Amino acid sequence: MAQTSTGLQLRSTVRQDGSLELSLVSVPTPEPKPDEVIVRMGAAPINPSDQGLLFGGADMSTAKASGTADQPVVTASIPPAALKAVAGRVGQSLPVGNEGAGVVVQAGASPAAQALMGKTVAILGGAMYTQYRCIKAVQCLVLPPGTTPADGASCFVNPLTALGMVATMRAEGHTALVHTAAASNLGQMLNKICLKDSVGLVNIVRRQEHVDLLKKLGAAHVCNSTSPTFMDDLTEALVATGATVAFDAIGGGSIAGQILTAMEAAANRTAKEYSRYGSTVHKQVYIYGGLDTGPTELTRNFGMAWGLGGWLLTYFLQKIGPAEGEKLRQRVASEIKTTFASHYTRVISLTEVLDPKVMADYNRKSTGEKFLIAPHKAA
Amino acid sequence: MAQTSTGLQLRSTVRQDGSLELSLVSVPTPEPKPDEVIVRMGAAPINPSDQGLLFGGADMSTAKASGTADQPVVTASIPPAALKAVAGRVGQSLPVGNEGAGVVVQAGASPAAQALMGKTVAILGGAMYTQYRCIKAVQCLVLPPGTTPADGASCFVNPLTALGMVATMRAEGHTALVHTAAASNLGQMLNKICLKDSVGLVNIVRRQEHVDLLKKLGAAHVCNSTSPTFMDDLTEALVATGATVAFDAIGGGSIAGQILTAMEAAANRTAKEYSRYGSTVHKQVYIYGGLDTGPTELTRNFGMAWGLGGWLLTYFLQKIGPAEGEKLRQRVASEIKTTFASHYTRVISLTEVLDPKVMADYNRKSTGEKFLIAPHKAA
Repeated sequence: MAQTSTGLQLRSTVRQDGSLELSLVSVPTPEPKPDEVIVRMGAAPINPSDQGLLFGGADMSTAKASGTADQPVVTASIPPAALKAVAGRVGQSLPVGNEGAGVVVQAGASPAAQALMGKTVAILGGAMYTQYRCIKAVQCLVLPPGTTPADGASCFVNPLTALGMVATMRAEGHTALVHTAAASNLGQMLNKICLKDSVGLVNIVRRQEHVDLLKKLGAAHVCNSTSPTFMDDLTEALVATGATVAFDAIGGGSIAGQILTAMEAAANRTAKEYSRYGSTVHKQVYIYGGLDTGPTELTRNFGMAWGLGGWLLTYFLQKIGPAEGEKLRQRVASEIKTTFASHYTRVISLTEVLDPKVMADYNRKSTGEKFLIAPHKAA
Repeated sequence: MAQTSTGLQLRSTVRQDGSLELSLVSVPTPEPKPDEVIVRMGAAPINPSDQGLLFGGADMSTAKASGTADQPVVTASIPPAALKAVAGRVGQSLPVGNEGAGVVVQAGASPAAQALMGKTVAILGGAMYTQYRCIKAVQCLVLPPGTTPADGASCFVNPLTALGMVATMRAEGHTALVHTAAASNLGQMLNKICLKDSVGLVNIVRRQEHVDLLKKLGAAHVCNSTSPTFMDDLTEALVATGATVAFDAIGGGSIAGQILTAMEAAANRTAKEYSRYGSTVHKQVYIYGGLDTGPTELTRNFGMAWGLGGWLLTYFLQKIGPAEGEKLRQRVASEIKTTFASHYTRVISLTEVLDPKVMADYNRKSTGEKFLIAPHKAA
């Protein structure tokens, strides 16, 4: 067990002076309790949802490298406007990484933990940009034989978010849905789910090449928000699908309001008499991301039956409870190489995560680009 | 029955040429069906919610009077931007007036209708700016002896809206609430309900005189949104009350977002550890009015547990169902001279409603001013 007794772990700290410090630290691997296992991490993705914690609102164009080749340190300044939002984490050296996968190399005494020895498992729970992760056996999702850690690294955030959108749609009485930034890894996954489950989906993208990409992947409705005919195209797609709920990754700007406006126009196509309060059909947009961190602007011309709100996977899973959540997890495991397959454009080591040149690449958040960290890959 | 066989009724029409026409027409009073009664209307308020239908988005500074003294006509032009919203009502001569009260002067054959003969009743259902209103007996709220039509004219819109806010607060698991434009008739009523029912209320107003007014009426928390310390004052009031739901009459601008921001700051006072997704406390703002018809702007710095939506009395009543609604109506009737008393600054005739000078007064929507129409008052 000598080689597992310590491991490297990526840390992010907002320092007292208002700057960000990223570093690799050597941490001892704990002895697992009876219900715990040690996972030798094979792969962990960099999701947009990891970058907020990783960068702490810092301006990464100011990043400076220091430290040694083995244990690099990167510092960057945090603009004053962003500092308030991270006030709660000042001085805390925080581990990063929501999800990943690896092989169980040590197990606590309980039968549940022992049963996992040698298994390839996917795990969720933070601190995944690390070489050895101690975690409860019950939190491990066992992957089917023949699945590598790289195959299973993204079992939770994107797959459960996509499934959560469809489940939320059903639970709230809608029958079809709208998705923005729809050419993303998550968007392609949602498209696959909707095709498989025969759920109407309206994809909104910002570039013609993403229209082409999604159409090639079988999407029936793809609207380009930069097209002059966008509002008409969107309204037609909403009439065709009956979608009255949307999940928006963008957040800022006018897109959420535009979707509500188009939903209202679609609902009024079938209205029989004038109502000054607009259509009685409830129209809902959930903001689940913040690709545009600017203000959200709503031109309220969509009646009174509407809602806008935040949507977070964690809250969704709490709401449906562990039994329903486990059903979703098992579906992901069984379809991890098909419906829920992720594609990575680059595999990097923990050291490379702290290389300012590599950092600039994964910080671009370009649709279609996705990085995978291999914590045991040589620097 | 000769004197009840016809009556004057106010009508609002958006004409084919895109202009608004307001007029008084003489309409025959229908013979009541067995379950119906005829109410001789004694009083009907002009609520902000009536003015949208009445004016149809027209620019009333362009109002021109014509017609005769007895049957005046007013026309005004509708700006092109507002025309789209009223496209559904073009060419329809629409009666106006959500609520009112009067005396039952004729009744259908059913025992329920007959039981109402001579009673003073409050009614809701549109077309109240009229001299005789035919309505189902079951829709009549019998007012306690000694109540005049003027006393009971506003039994529904404001009282049920105020009660609906408190009921929505409870149904959605909140324990205190925030209200904007809080010095309005509705706001004063909500303040009385909250004092009586021991519910925490944070009042937001825009003028110091309204702070003074509400404090004099016993309000514990009144914040002035034009004060430089507004955000701090609001946060303190939210901490003190624990309010996590707000009802906003303004709609446009930054107020809805400011309330969410302050709720988040209040929630984080007690947070034990940093969460990059913000506090897990669900924060909700309902927009129920549009004093500012401009865009709603949200600076999303309040985590992911939030919602913004439209709130409409009609939808609320549908949601709670007739039995719960009847309980609220009975409470209003029994407290109509105390908790739910309305104060009017002016009583006008149907003809005066169409007098451009009077119109300019009631169209100002000044807090504290409220007009009552007396349909049988001589011109």
